[in-house]
Amino acid sequence: MIALLPGDGIGPEVIAEAVRVLDAAGCALDFQQAAVGGAAYRESGHPLPETTLDLARRADAILFGAVGDPACDTLERRLRPEQAILGLRRELALFANLRPAKLFAELADASALRPEVAAEIDLVIVRELNGDVYFGEKGMRTTPAGRRQGYDVMAYDEDEVARIARVGFETAMARGRTLCSVDKANVLETSQLWRDVVTEIASEYPQVALSHMYVDNAAMQLVRNPGQFDVIVTGNLFGDILSDQASMCAGSIGMLPSASLDSAGKGLYEPIHGSAPDIAGQGKANPLATILSAAMMLRYSLGRAEEADRIEAAVAAALAGGARTPDLGGTLSTSQMGDAVIEALA
Amino acid sequence: MIALLPGDGIGPEVIAEAVRVLDAAGCALDFQQAAVGGAAYRESGHPLPETTLDLARRADAILFGAVGDPACDTLERRLRPEQAILGLRRELALFANLRPAKLFAELADASALRPEVAAEIDLVIVRELNGDVYFGEKGMRTTPAGRRQGYDVMAYDEDEVARIARVGFETAMARGRTLCSVDKANVLETSQLWRDVVTEIASEYPQVALSHMYVDNAAMQLVRNPGQFDVIVTGNLFGDILSDQASMCAGSIGMLPSASLDSAGKGLYEPIHGSAPDIAGQGKANPLATILSAAMMLRYSLGRAEEADRIEAAVAAALAGGARTPDLGGTLSTSQMGDAVIEALA
Ligand SMILES: CC(C)[C@H](C(=O)O)[C@@H](O)C(=O)O
Ligand SMILES: CC(C)[C@H](C(=O)O)[C@@H](O)C(=O)O
Repeated sequence: MIALLPGDGIGPEVIAEAVRVLDAAGCALDFQQAAVGGAAYRESGHPLPETTLDLARRADAILFGAVGDPACDTLERRLRPEQAILGLRRELALFANLRPAKLFAELADASALRPEVAAEIDLVIVRELNGDVYFGEKGMRTTPAGRRQGYDVMAYDEDEVARIARVGFETAMARGRTLCSVDKANVLETSQLWRDVVTEIASEYPQVALSHMYVDNAAMQLVRNPGQFDVIVTGNLFGDILSDQASMCAGSIGMLPSASLDSAGKGLYEPIHGSAPDIAGQGKANPLATILSAAMMLRYSLGRAEEADRIEAAVAAALAGGARTPDLGGTLSTSQMGDAVIEALA
Repeated sequence: MIALLPGDGIGPEVIAEAVRVLDAAGCALDFQQAAVGGAAYRESGHPLPETTLDLARRADAILFGAVGDPACDTLERRLRPEQAILGLRRELALFANLRPAKLFAELADASALRPEVAAEIDLVIVRELNGDVYFGEKGMRTTPAGRRQGYDVMAYDEDEVARIARVGFETAMARGRTLCSVDKANVLETSQLWRDVVTEIASEYPQVALSHMYVDNAAMQLVRNPGQFDVIVTGNLFGDILSDQASMCAGSIGMLPSASLDSAGKGLYEPIHGSAPDIAGQGKANPLATILSAAMMLRYSLGRAEEADRIEAAVAAALAGGARTPDLGGTLSTSQMGDAVIEALA
């Protein structure tokens, strides 16, 4: 059973297209849907209700749209839509986030980078999702001088680093055997431990060439020469920043899928983009990131690589045939883009 | 008196050219030099010796090269070269880091971005330098399960945010009156306080249009459409990442200067680039970022805006005349680039 969590904004629109494509590809999956994010808050007063979490626990995989709703901005943080995705990642121990970034050859014009620079992009960011400053102790306190102070504790322990490092090395083994670990070890103790542990784990993977890079330099290199990267492994916060940046280097953020995996291969699949409230309900959203996330789900959690290949090929064929939503400079609606993929499947 | 702190790697080479240009411009400054970083560690066992800190305290302004030395990578953190610049920023209360990023029209080819996207870049990043996860409590500890854990506390109090916010608003007042505050308020309490305080301070500057952006989105927007930004104000860590990224969008990191100011206008001026040990001593470094940092020093700390203008115009003229170091695709040596600027001054 696949849990469908459409969420907020453009989430429902893009999930609908992914489901249509999965059906058209003959996948015959058993979907069960639940509310999440702002949508769930409105129904039940909580962005991640017990029933939704329960459905997600029972599912073989989760197909997730997006959460985020400006109308909820004034709620206290624990009630905000974003807490739903953070809660799912944490409750289901989805610690390994895989974010591939690759320019579809058909979209060479969509990147802000020079075409010859953008064409080189073919990398995967492996982002840790269960720790870092996201999940440490945090709060408001008063300083000795009587001032309000916000604080968040950043931390990683050696086991947390080791398990994501192994995902990084395994991913590199299946690709170009080159792993770049990104940290800020010249300033952070967390990063110093990160660097030490990644270096220790490297001895298990003698065929992988490991390098270390500071996050400020990595942000620069992703613009200067993104083609130098094969696999990047990094923490939750740096991964959040670098993967959005990389997705834009590779063209539209509307194109890029992601997988968040636990240690047994169960996963949550979601587009990298957010809920885009400004275009919600207008049929302008690009559904390809979600369709490609569904393909990742077939491959990683369901062991159905052939169907994944077929869907990915259909996306490439639709693009080659000129199908373009507004983010790609075209005029197709969300469902027309879904149609184009379905036609290409036939 | 100007404290000259050349530091490591290419630091001494680029500082030498800045001094030659200041002399040629007739500035007649009183320079006093001291060792810093790895160079100081080798001489005295500490990257920021008391004598160096003392000279910096007594100076009207500090012209700083770069620190960082791979030979020091195995030292404990407090002895590493990078601690020198962190120590200076903190000891001298240099809390406001101004990092302008603008593409010199002559260098339209140097950016990895499409020329039409790069041409639009004209922004200043105002980065807080005295707080955040850089200076909170940090260390190694053992978890209840007996595992090593690295931790770093991120924190800002309301006064720290208010004073950097005011620098952001003042900078915006002197430019396009548009300020974008960057945080991660959907995850961090520190950012929530940041956002609240920046919003409060906005009432003092009704003419400035304020917006808020999450850091992951900002990293994306800096690639997608950097022309949308006028002034960005952000914390120490996000500012570190975004300013390196922005510098690369604007062409070579070898071009961009920075100023780190206290509340009285005293400042430390340094190129954004690092010590580049791979090219140190080879005369390959681009001295323009340091020469432009010297111009910022004349303008911000010494009240000599005319001389600053002259030097900046000479840099533009040298570039227009075709002067290019290797990072810009040319063959001039560091001192030949200095010569080109000096000729243009005449
Ligand atoms: C919505 C937000 C909490 C989330 C994150 O920061 O992880 C998002 O930016 C992402 O990258 O999935
Ligand atoms: C050298 C390092 C500690 C420093 C920083 O992180 O602030 C550098 O990257 C910078 O931006 O000046």
